[in-house]
Amino acid sequence: MGLKQTFERAHSVEQAQQPSVGLVGFGGFGRLIARELAQGNKLTICDPLYSRAVLPDGQRLTLQGLAEVAQSDIVILAVPVSAMAHVCRVLAPHLRPGTLVVDVGSVKVAPMQDMQRLLPAHVEILGTHPLFGPQSARSGIAGHKIALCPVRGSKWRRVAAVLRRRGLQVLVTSAQDHDRELAVVQGLTHMIGKVLSDLGPMPERLTTASFDLLREAVRMVQDDPPTVLHAIEVANPYAAEVRNAFFERAEELKAQFEAHPEVGQTVPAS
Amino acid sequence: MGLKQTFERAHSVEQAQQPSVGLVGFGGFGRLIARELAQGNKLTICDPLYSRAVLPDGQRLTLQGLAEVAQSDIVILAVPVSAMAHVCRVLAPHLRPGTLVVDVGSVKVAPMQDMQRLLPAHVEILGTHPLFGPQSARSGIAGHKIALCPVRGSKWRRVAAVLRRRGLQVLVTSAQDHDRELAVVQGLTHMIGKVLSDLGPMPERLTTASFDLLREAVRMVQDDPPTVLHAIEVANPYAAEVRNAFFERAEELKAQFEAHPEVGQTVPAS
Repeated sequence: MGLKQTFERAHSVEQAQQPSVGLVGFGGFGRLIARELAQGNKLTICDPLYSRAVLPDGQRLTLQGLAEVAQSDIVILAVPVSAMAHVCRVLAPHLRPGTLVVDVGSVKVAPMQDMQRLLPAHVEILGTHPLFGPQSARSGIAGHKIALCPVRGSKWRRVAAVLRRRGLQVLVTSAQDHDRELAVVQGLTHMIGKVLSDLGPMPERLTTASFDLLREAVRMVQDDPPTVLHAIEVANPYAAEVRNAFFERAEELKAQFEAHPEVGQTVPAS
Repeated sequence: MGLKQTFERAHSVEQAQQPSVGLVGFGGFGRLIARELAQGNKLTICDPLYSRAVLPDGQRLTLQGLAEVAQSDIVILAVPVSAMAHVCRVLAPHLRPGTLVVDVGSVKVAPMQDMQRLLPAHVEILGTHPLFGPQSARSGIAGHKIALCPVRGSKWRRVAAVLRRRGLQVLVTSAQDHDRELAVVQGLTHMIGKVLSDLGPMPERLTTASFDLLREAVRMVQDDPPTVLHAIEVANPYAAEVRNAFFERAEELKAQFEAHPEVGQTVPAS
């Protein structure tokens, strides 16, 4: 057997050992997953909006129906948080026993409840939240963080090991702890980012180092689709509370600043 | 003449060519100025709070009175914006003709008006705003930005040339344009930074890249003295307007988020 055949055979054995992956959703994050899995995994994709997908390596894929994708060893749901319950309902009858169903949403409490309630008892469930996106991971996922909320079964441990080998920092937590922390981390960042980008172009000339960091943070979140903002600000059960604490403290400060009108009223010479 | 003497003589000729500098104010920013000028300039310092100053190179300096410091070729006022008018009044009678008086405050409109009104007509005036601080420039000033608002005389051009040679990016502007731009750049950053640091320790585990940038921005401004926050939020004539635009847009967004209670009310399983 020649060298080429040896390599091809080794590669096909490796592929055979890799679990097959079904991806539901080919939006911004679905594409990132496809890019990461295009090599080495048997990947099938389903998205009602598309019939063909071009992977980043140029590979063209005909998109499958939900029933076909459901036959994979691992099924990843990369759908908006608000669509989770619906997708679980239509997916449920097609899932085989022992399949691992994984989500990637920005909130975990409600989606994990939906998955437990709506998916058959014979599948395993893992909640994940990759703490990066198409913007921050455009040059690769290594070094980024991913939160895992194991819900049912033990296959998630193998997933965690693969993610660690890919250079990700794996953080295991509960859905509640996740949503409480992310209500600050994403709730505040995305709200501030949305307000600042709505206010129009930001200054670029007379800037400070701290403002440059703030502007860079805004740039990273401003192109997120509205479904992400909705998940972070509305579907996270702790977001409103954190937001209100921010505004209460801001109002107090504002009142303090306005209590010194003698200085603020200085009229600029024109 | 030996090599040592040649060097010493060259050094003393160089020192003689350098203008003498008087520094009023030995707070956080005054110390940064002293660190930058300790080599090569004849530097005298005045601060009513101190009688001795230890420069970063270990040199011990006896602090002078305002009258002595006023004899320098260049007098730098590194005092809180709210103290500018007072300092100008007590400094004025001691200043020699042709002296260049420079400020370093975070706002320019009102302080420039105070300097023009209160300093004698025979001195030159330059408003500056170094767009960095003890935090962001702790490892040096090269690469940072400084805004210059020339008010009276032409010696500021020599200062600009020296600053450029030190690696600073020199941005010449008017007091009005400066304050309008900084009302966004510093007004929003410091307000957001103050609110976030008042809310308590920020999450460190489940963080995203954009939140890490926001947290770093907060860390850079949270140790600024209250006088800096006052200058930025109260003494800047455009700060209130920018702040109000931020809060109006934020309130609209908040109302949008709260219009979807059916999702937000999901009760976490405990």
